[in-house]
Formats: sequence, C-alpha cells, structure tokens
Amino acid sequence: MTADPRDPAAIQLSTVEQWAAAHLDPTWYAYFAGGAAAERTLRGNVTGFDRFELRPRVLAEFEAATAATRVLGHELSMPVLTAPMAFMRMAHPDGDEGIARAVAATGAGMLLSTLSPSTPAEVAAAAPTATRWLQLYVLRDRGLSDDLVAEALEAGFSAIVLTADLPVIGSRGRELASGWAIPEDELPALVRARRAGATERGFDLLDPTVSWGEVDRLASQFGVPVVVKGILRADDAVLAADHGAAGIVVSNHGGRQLDGAPPAIAALPAIAEAAGDRVEVLLDGGVRHGSDVVTALGLGARAVLVGRQVLWGLAVGGEPGARRVLELLGSEIAVALRLLGCASPAEVGRDRVNPRD
Amino acid sequence: MTADPRDPAAIQLSTVEQWAAAHLDPTWYAYFAGGAAAERTLRGNVTGFDRFELRPRVLAEFEAATAATRVLGHELSMPVLTAPMAFMRMAHPDGDEGIARAVAATGAGMLLSTLSPSTPAEVAAAAPTATRWLQLYVLRDRGLSDDLVAEALEAGFSAIVLTADLPVIGSRGRELASGWAIPEDELPALVRARRAGATERGFDLLDPTVSWGEVDRLASQFGVPVVVKGILRADDAVLAADHGAAGIVVSNHGGRQLDGAPPAIAALPAIAEAAGDRVEVLLDGGVRHGSDVVTALGLGARAVLVGRQVLWGLAVGGEPGARRVLELLGSEIAVALRLLGCASPAEVGRDRVNPRD
Amino acid sequence: MTADPRDPAAIQLSTVEQWAAAHLDPTWYAYFAGGAAAERTLRGNVTGFDRFELRPRVLAEFEAATAATRVLGHELSMPVLTAPMAFMRMAHPDGDEGIARAVAATGAGMLLSTLSPSTPAEVAAAAPTATRWLQLYVLRDRGLSDDLVAEALEAGFSAIVLTADLPVIGSRGRELASGWAIPEDELPALVRARRAGATERGFDLLDPTVSWGEVDRLASQFGVPVVVKGILRADDAVLAADHGAAGIVVSNHGGRQLDGAPPAIAALPAIAEAAGDRVEVLLDGGVRHGSDVVTALGLGARAVLVGRQVLWGLAVGGEPGARRVLELLGSEIAVALRLLGCASPAEVGRDRVNPRD
Amino acid sequence: MTADPRDPAAIQLSTVEQWAAAHLDPTWYAYFAGGAAAERTLRGNVTGFDRFELRPRVLAEFEAATAATRVLGHELSMPVLTAPMAFMRMAHPDGDEGIARAVAATGAGMLLSTLSPSTPAEVAAAAPTATRWLQLYVLRDRGLSDDLVAEALEAGFSAIVLTADLPVIGSRGRELASGWAIPEDELPALVRARRAGATERGFDLLDPTVSWGEVDRLASQFGVPVVVKGILRADDAVLAADHGAAGIVVSNHGGRQLDGAPPAIAALPAIAEAAGDRVEVLLDGGVRHGSDVVTALGLGARAVLVGRQVLWGLAVGGEPGARRVLELLGSEIAVALRLLGCASPAEVGRDRVNPRD
Repeated sequence: MTADPRDPAAIQLSTVEQWAAAHLDPTWYAYFAGGAAAERTLRGNVTGFDRFELRPRVLAEFEAATAATRVLGHELSMPVLTAPMAFMRMAHPDGDEGIARAVAATGAGMLLSTLSPSTPAEVAAAAPTATRWLQLYVLRDRGLSDDLVAEALEAGFSAIVLTADLPVIGSRGRELASGWAIPEDELPALVRARRAGATERGFDLLDPTVSWGEVDRLASQFGVPVVVKGILRADDAVLAADHGAAGIVVSNHGGRQLDGAPPAIAALPAIAEAAGDRVEVLLDGGVRHGSDVVTALGLGARAVLVGRQVLWGLAVGGEPGARRVLELLGSEIAVALRLLGCASPAEVGRDRVNPRD
Repeated sequence: MTADPRDPAAIQLSTVEQWAAAHLDPTWYAYFAGGAAAERTLRGNVTGFDRFELRPRVLAEFEAATAATRVLGHELSMPVLTAPMAFMRMAHPDGDEGIARAVAATGAGMLLSTLSPSTPAEVAAAAPTATRWLQLYVLRDRGLSDDLVAEALEAGFSAIVLTADLPVIGSRGRELASGWAIPEDELPALVRARRAGATERGFDLLDPTVSWGEVDRLASQFGVPVVVKGILRADDAVLAADHGAAGIVVSNHGGRQLDGAPPAIAALPAIAEAAGDRVEVLLDGGVRHGSDVVTALGLGARAVLVGRQVLWGLAVGGEPGARRVLELLGSEIAVALRLLGCASPAEVGRDRVNPRD
Repeated sequence: MTADPRDPAAIQLSTVEQWAAAHLDPTWYAYFAGGAAAERTLRGNVTGFDRFELRPRVLAEFEAATAATRVLGHELSMPVLTAPMAFMRMAHPDGDEGIARAVAATGAGMLLSTLSPSTPAEVAAAAPTATRWLQLYVLRDRGLSDDLVAEALEAGFSAIVLTADLPVIGSRGRELASGWAIPEDELPALVRARRAGATERGFDLLDPTVSWGEVDRLASQFGVPVVVKGILRADDAVLAADHGAAGIVVSNHGGRQLDGAPPAIAALPAIAEAAGDRVEVLLDGGVRHGSDVVTALGLGARAVLVGRQVLWGLAVGGEPGARRVLELLGSEIAVALRLLGCASPAEVGRDRVNPRD
Repeated sequence: MTADPRDPAAIQLSTVEQWAAAHLDPTWYAYFAGGAAAERTLRGNVTGFDRFELRPRVLAEFEAATAATRVLGHELSMPVLTAPMAFMRMAHPDGDEGIARAVAATGAGMLLSTLSPSTPAEVAAAAPTATRWLQLYVLRDRGLSDDLVAEALEAGFSAIVLTADLPVIGSRGRELASGWAIPEDELPALVRARRAGATERGFDLLDPTVSWGEVDRLASQFGVPVVVKGILRADDAVLAADHGAAGIVVSNHGGRQLDGAPPAIAALPAIAEAAGDRVEVLLDGGVRHGSDVVTALGLGARAVLVGRQVLWGLAVGGEPGARRVLELLGSEIAVALRLLGCASPAEVGRDRVNPRD
C-alpha cells in the first residue's frame, strides 16, 4: 500500500519536501528551497545536526513526556513556532491564514512576516487563539514601522521579532537562475494599504542602518518582549541582552543570506552559554524532525522556529498539510523527550547532548 | 558464473540485504529495514565502525583461532546471539523457530522477543540445545509479565533481557509511509493465549514506567541473569550493575527509537570502561561482518547481537538462509581473530583497536 | 521561465562552469578544468572552504558595504584580480583582450600570462585603464625574460608576478587522456615575435633553476613591486619578504601542479600570520563566490585571484560573459561584507572567520 | 580526439582500472579488485592519502629531480617495486614474465609471488637485469620452503620478503560471490614441479604458525636481506628489527585480509618513527600516482610497492601496458619531487608532509 501524495494525512516529515517539489511551480520551488551562493550554509543547517549525538537515559519511571513548554511567558503545546516566511500564498492559497489556523489547532506559535500580504488583523481573525508574534523588518520610515507594530499589537500579537540579518538581500543564485520575481499581486499588506505605488518591492522599504539602539527603543516603546533574530555569535547575544532584548533567535536566515555562516545548531552552544539566563534563546534552521528539536533544547534553546517543513506541508495540502506537519513534529518531540528520559522540555539538560567525538 | 539469489548457499554477508529486499514485500522490507526520523542513527550504526581501526599483530605462532567464547556462563561457538525481533514469520514462514534451529546448528545464542507469535515452549521444542534468552518488555500487568518469564524459564531459557529503550515506540517514518500495520494473525503468543481481545497491538501491554527497581526485582525473583538492553551511557551502565544486572546491551534499538543517538559501537568504549568487570557488556547495532564483531570485542564487548543480517538470511532462504549467515559470521570472526593475532575472543585486548586518528 | 544559456546576462556563478562545459570543445574543457594526478588538490581548492565558517555581526548601523580596496597601492573596485591563464583565445576569440576589457569595465585587476598570444602592448591597448600585472615565468634566456618585463612595464603593467611553482609541468592526466596539445597557431607572443622556430612549446623556454636571488634582482632592476606566486608554506613566505617581494600569492596553481598540496585557503592562515605586514598576501584557488573572497580576507588575504570562473564566463559569452562573472563577484562580495557587518574589505578582521570546529 | 583503450600508449594512471575492468573477465576482475568483508580497508588504502598534505618549497634552484634511489642496497630508477601478485597470467598471457620485463625496462624492482606459476628461473631468464626479490609464504614443509628460496637465490633474486599477514585467507566476499576458483592449470610452479597432486590449492601448503624465529632463521641461513611484509604496528616493526629483518613492508595486503585495518599510509608514520634507521621501511597499499609515492617518502618510507596499477596495465596491454604504468609512475614521481623542491627521494624530509589539519 503506497501513500497518496495528495492526501495531507499521508504526509511524512522525511518526504514532505519531495512531495512539495512535485506540487510547486519550479520557479517558486527554487525560491522557497534555495539558499545563498554555493548553498553551503543551506545544506549545513541540516547536516549540522550530525555534529551532535543525543544521550538517552533509560528506565526513567514515568508514563509519557509532554512537549508543552513556556516561551517568553506563553504556554505552547510544543517548543515550536513557525518561522516568518514571505509569499505563503504562492505555496498555497491558504497562505498565512492557513498557517495561523494550523498553529492554533496544534498549540504551536507563529511568527508573521513584515512582508505578508495579509495584515496582522486578518491573521488574528483567522486564528484568534494562536500565539502570534510579529517579525519586524525595521522600515526606513520609522512612522510606518511603528504603525505596523502598533497594528499587530492591537491584533493581539505579543512579541516583536526584529530580523537583524537582512541589511541587504543575500546572493541567491537559484532564485535568480529560475527567473523568480515578486508577483504583482503579492505586495506586502503594508505596501498595498498605505504606500501603494511607492515601491514595487517591499525590500526597498527596509532600513539597513538599524542599530542596537533600535532594540532599546522598541523594547521601551511598545511594552512587549523584543526578540532579535539572526544572531550567530556570542558577543552579539550579549549585546542583545544589554540592549533590552527578551530573546534571541540563533539563525542564518535559512541559509539564504551569508553563505559560509555556520549551521545554526553549531552556533547555538556558545551563544546559549554566553546568554545564560539573560535572554531566551531560540534556534532557527535545519529542523526537520522532533529529534532535531530536542537536540536544540539540550544545547540551550528554549524553542525552535520551523520554516520550510511547515511550508512544504502547506504546499502539499494547504492548512491541513501544515497542521499535519506540526502534529507530526509535536508527536516526534514528545517521543524523543520520552526516549531521552525527560518528562518535558525543561528537563533536557546539557548532559543529554554531546558533540560527536 | 553468477551466484543464484535463490540459493541459500550463495548468500554473502555484503549482499544479503539486497537479496532480501528483492524477496520481501516492500511494506515489510520498509518495516524491517527502516529506522526513526531521519535515520541518522540507523546509518550511523554501520558507518560508526569507520571511527575505529583494527591493529593486527603478525607472526603469532599458532595454527588457527577459535571464535568460541563464554557469555554469562554459556559456551557459545562464537560471540554472537541473534537479536530479538518481532514478526519473523513475515520474513519467512520458518519464523522464530527457523532462527532457533539455525542458532542451534551453529552454536550461537538466541534472544526471543516478548512479542513473538511463538511461545517460548514452541521455540524450545524446535531447538532444545540452543542457548536461548528471553527478551522482556515488562508488561503493565506484572502478573502476566512474570508468567511469561516463568514460562520461558520452564522452557529452558536461561536469561532475562529487559529492554529499557522502548517506553514509547520511536517515530518511524518509513514504516508509517509504507502503510505498515500489524497483521491480524501475527498477534504475540502471550496475547493470543491469555489476553485475546484485550488489545490489538501488543505494544499497548507494555509498561513505560519501568524503573531500575524492576531489575532488582527480576534478578532476585527468578534466579537467572538479568541483562539490561538499550544502554547508551556510562552512568546507566553503572546503575545497571548497582541494581543487580549481570549484563548490559549497548544498543540504540537498531536505530528505530531515538534518532540522533550515537552509533552503538561509538558508545561502547566509555560504557565498557565504566562497567569494568561488574557486568558483561554486549553490543547491538550495525554488525554486518566478523571484523565488526572483533572490533566490538576490542572495545570491551563480550559478545554482540546480530539482528538484520540474520533476518535477511531468513528472508532469502528460511532457516538455511539464517544458518548460512551465522556460519559466515562465525567463519569471518575466526578469520579476523587469527589475522589480529588472537587465538580466541578472550585475547582481543584493548590494544587491538584504535579510534581512527 | 528558464534562463537562456546563450545569454551572458543569464550567467550565474553556481552554474557557469556547466554552461561553459557545454560550449567548449571537450579537449579544451579537459585542459581548462583538469588538475594533476588524482585531482585531490583540484577538488580540495573548492571543498577547502568548508573548513571555515564566517561569523557575521548584526545591526552594524551603516547603509551598504563597498568592495573597493587597495592592493599593492592600486585602487580596485573589489579585491579581485583575474588569474593568469594561457590559451584564452581557445575559450573564446575575445581572448586576453576580452578579459582585459571586462576587468577595465568592472574595476578589478588582471594578470597577463607570460604565455599569452597577445603582447602586453596589445592588451594594454584593449584596456588602457585596467590595473594590469605581468605574470612572469622566468626564461632561461634572461635577456628575453627582461625584454618581456620591460615591454610590459612600457605598456603600463605595474607589477611583476613571478610564478614559482612550475619548475616542471604537473602530471595532468585529464589533459593527456584528452589528446590535448598546444595548437600551432597559439604560440606565445614572445615566441612568435622574437624566437620563432626556436621552440614549439613555450614551456621549453622556462628556467626551472630560478632561485630566490631572482626576486631580489627583479625587484631592484625594474622598480615595480614583485609578487611571488605559488607559496604554500610560511617559511617560503618569510623568504619572499626577505628577498624583497612586495607580495605573495598563496596558490597551488589551481590544482594543476603538485597533487596532494593543501587547498589554497587551508594554507593561507599560517602564511598570512608569518607574513605579517611585510608583504601583501593574495589567495588563488577555488574562489567561486563572493563569500569565498571574504573568507580569504578574514584569513589574512588582501585580495584573491579568480581564474576558472572568469574563464567559464569568457567561454560562455566572450567579454560580456567574463564581465558578467566579475560583476556578480563584485556584487556578492559587497553583499557578503555587508552581511558580515563590515563596511569594506579592510574591516574584515580575523574574528570574522573560524576554523570549523 | 579520444584515446583508444586498446592502445597501451594511451593508458593513464587515473583511468587504467576502468579500462582493465572492461578487458577482464568479471570473475577475475572481482578477484583482482576485491577486498575483505565490507572492503573498508580496501577503500581506505586510497582515501587514506587524503589525511595528508604535501608541503612544497619553491625556487629550489636546480634543474630537475631524479626518482632514482637505493633500496636495500639496490639502485632503482624509482622508489617502486611491483607487489607480489598471484595469477598474473589470468590478467594477461604475458604474466609474471611480462611484469619482469616491464620492471627491467624501467629500472624498478619486482617481487615474485611464492604462488607464481612461473619459476624464479623462468622469471630471471625473462628479465635477467631486473632487481628481483622473492615473496615468501613460509611453507609447512620447511624443506620445500627452503628449496624455493635457494632456487630463487640461485636465479639471482636478492632478497626474501616474508609475508606475515596471511596465516589464514581473508574473508573476501566479492571473490566468493563471483564464483571465483583457482583454475586447474594455474597451479603454483612449486606445486607443479615438486608436489604435483599433493594439493589443489597452493594455500594449503602455507604454514600459519610461522613465528618471529623464522625471520632470524632465514636471515642467518640465506645471507640475503629478509623483509617482513604485512606490518601495521610500531611494536611489530621493532620486533622485525630485533629478529634480524633488513626491511619491513607496511601493508594490509591490499585490503584483502583484515577488514578494518588502517590504511597503509595512515599506519606508516608511527611505524617509520619506531623503526628509525634499524630497518628500511616500504609502503604497500593504495599507491595510484607519483604524488602518493612522495607522500610515503615524506612519512618515512624508502620505497613503495605497487600492485593493482601494474596489474591493470598488464591486463590492458600486456607487458607494454605494465611498462607504460611504471613509466608514468616514474615520471610522476620525478615531477612530484621537483615540485616539492627535492632533487631526489633522499631529500624528502618529514617537513614535506603534514597530517591534514
């Protein structure tokens, strides 16, 4: 009996990308799947997990583990939030709203991209109960930038995730070679609504000169936690804490920005050690299975972001496909925790993961 | 002249899996061959042997080596026992009885799965002379659990191997993707005989809350050696000794439970060192050839479990196929010992294996 | 929409070699692409970059980075010079003049091969504004050798790059297997113009017995910087400085000379440390993307040579193809600098690159 | 222009094995190419060279290097002897005599197998000027064993190479799977001539109980240098010296005996260091190119044995094919020496090779 690739219920985490590749327009698949330059970092995000080994303890005397955890004060059913991604409607008409509903159904969290064609309010309406954070590209026009934040907070978004690793767009050869371009009708909501005609590419709105002071400003002005996304060094993690961040995301932007940057998981241990208890540390990059998540927990992460896996689920089966991916992840995490001998994410200590040799 | 894949006498250790894959129903091949999640640990069990190098001594002045050894007080013709595996009848109608007869014929040992459709008595009848141990999943119903042990001991099984690494079933994507399910008529003997209808999946009978105290209890109650299977850390090996185990099996359950766990062979050295002479250490995972066995001996194992190789032999040629695999293994072990300059397994000292670089 | 391989504007750095392979005569592709012996070093030049990881800093508070830099006193738009290569006309009729024009258009620098069929004056005429250096194989006939240098200086070439790693031609199996031979009508200009008939292969003119004294002699006689190309050890770098070199090129001759030599990028750090400020250090070998260039900068290089990528661009699209490759490289370098948090090549400190683990 | 695989003059070192595979009967190719068990060591012999890097010095001020050297007092044109191999006539009718003539023509040395169908006298007649050593499997019948040695010395063989790593034949799956068997008419000369009918397999004549005392005995009895072949540990190298050996061969028998043994090149450095000046050290295993030879020299070898490359040359083109392989090797060695900055093998110091990283 072979599974039917059109059936979201048949999605498996190991094969969902291939199924998605078969569903998607090749140009869009190139856009979503591709990375920068020689794609060393893109591949490294996944193979980087081979540098670590999990060290389970047995006969741990409890029934089952829960994946539930607390991230920046929010209760989540699992230590997973969906990564902010643009152009979700090109993967499937369900788009960001579909992901939001999948997140709400499974108890994960969601990061909405600044460049989403949906407004924060639209996404909130689709999934009012979901934990939602706003991914923020700080805009050259700080008024517009602040309006977006205010609008998101108004819609119940509960944290600001400032993306720090895109002062310029990475050199993405696969994207360029495919002839990819932003579709006319996929302009970001903030462009459509307020600056129609001002630019054809949302990227032009972004301010590359953002400095650490912006973290202080956002933290003091909006009264919600500010998270800095794109940290790959311990010294920058310390700076984030110094400037009032409540959290950081260890990330190389899915291998789409600086090729040659380390796998996110490889950069995590030193950063988590430097961060200590001053900020909560999240990991973004290469997470495909629950065992990857618990590896990140053991190396000091509080939770992880999952991007492409959810996107492939959405591409294959819309909201049910994305939900299926999150369900599988949640299930795999609980299984991996139990097999590690940990009753919950909080119990995954540093002794549960070793560098390979 | 090309060998005939239908001829058990033509089986070779390097190709038996491919032959078996051609014989088996794809769903069952997926079940038997697959591992958890991204199958990192599944692959690692085999490639882990690349981390070590054998260091032969020459001109050793004796005729031939013997593979014969003593494991938990039993004389075996080679330091090999067959790993406990469920659903052997789906590989070949000869099933567990076929493996038992192959074991008896070659002088290896055998571990019978708790979930076998054959009773210990049936297996004992098929191969009364074989060294047979009972693999035990401790059941929620301790009475039933103890009945199974008692029945096995009655039938001449001489050790209890408590599997400690399955408090929950691993996330096995290949299995799920293949549509695999337990066949109606392959219920474990213990379910059929005593609890018919109580459950459709034997796994539901298992108690995930087993603790180290159960090792003490089994050891004191049944008067046979208790072995804890599924150890991957030195501290758990010490605990096993503290709780009265006579042996441990270093194992990641053939890569089917916690993906990301180290290759069994890589976990062995530190465990063997911690265990010292307090417990006998067995190695389970990735053994394909006699040189793998002697590598394990050099790293501190007393013997190894061999699962899939025997299963592939059974799938290709029934009992004669399984026997051929064991014969080849025994022969390769004796050859490898002689080439190492060791007259017997007991002579394989720690100086015979080096970590690669 | 798929890119058109015949359109130079569609060239991408990741795929230009495949496109070139499809354009070129197989024998010439073998000549250009091949390396020595087992081609370990050829492959290592590219994979060697995997031994290092870039360590970006975020929120760096400036608009954009410039790739512009200063090499041996020359202002270049990027830290890139084209490597000296023979037989460019066999890649495309535009030949060395095409490369020179591409270099002039993009603000990079160029090294002209001793064995070019074009004279320095011809190349200078094609691209009077380009930074041009003469690659020198010291000839047995020192008079002829000096004439060539003088002619080049007269034509505005501003440095002498003495190639030190070709006392004999490497063992290039792919070349030999392809039946490659120097075409009758591609004799070096210096042979055609002055020594016609003296030899059929320019290589016979070269003096293998060149010693460090030649570096002193050239430096004192011609009054332009002398660069020694082909250094792979720290002690030789120190000797180069001792003998008056202004620069060195860390290079294994594109993997075409001594197979088994380390990747150029792997040899760089120790050499750069030994060289200190005494000589400017350039890196030659395996550079395919802008991220490779910034890796070299972080490990102590002032600039890099780029050979095959420019050659493939020339093969695909003549001068516009070569120009496209340089434009892409310049753009990728500026992007990679910005992502590293460095406003210019001079800001790429040693802390921006780590050995992988 | 593509080379003609039937033309010995077109043989290249990188492709000769593929050509030979196309020429040979598949069963014989399996016999010649295969290794033991999982063939880890077979592959490791070649890939082991990747663990080292050559470190050339430039501007070395001499014309050309010579590959000529002195091994056990014999002048050779290059530090290469052909490895002892059985069944050469099945590769090509020219057989051992063909190899001997190729060796004589090129100035290399040759080791003749105990199991050759040709007598030492026949081989000597074919190539009276070649440096010839006798590879010796010590026979159970010491009288016959000594007769063979005496006959070889009579025929001008000048050293005894005692093979120490075949007390039993390795587990060679590819051989077995291919249905390979010793052909009736390829019995060793010593069987045919003196013990016809005594055995069908020459291997049965061999004495596995040989001890170090045999080295003493041979050395004192025959007055020619004794070399022990098959050393993989420093302590055994010291024992060889203690027992009067003049040389040792670091070898794992081409990966055909103990799978899991280290690559010969990886075992060399510690052995050469332990051996010091007490014995000459040769390296056998994985040599495909001249750069491999100089790597071995840098790690302490005086010379290398080359087996399969010469065999493939013989298979492709008979004696001219084998000669072509040796010519190419000699040429590559001289080139590699010159590129290293060494005028002869004796100049290749330990500083010319580094472990990778």
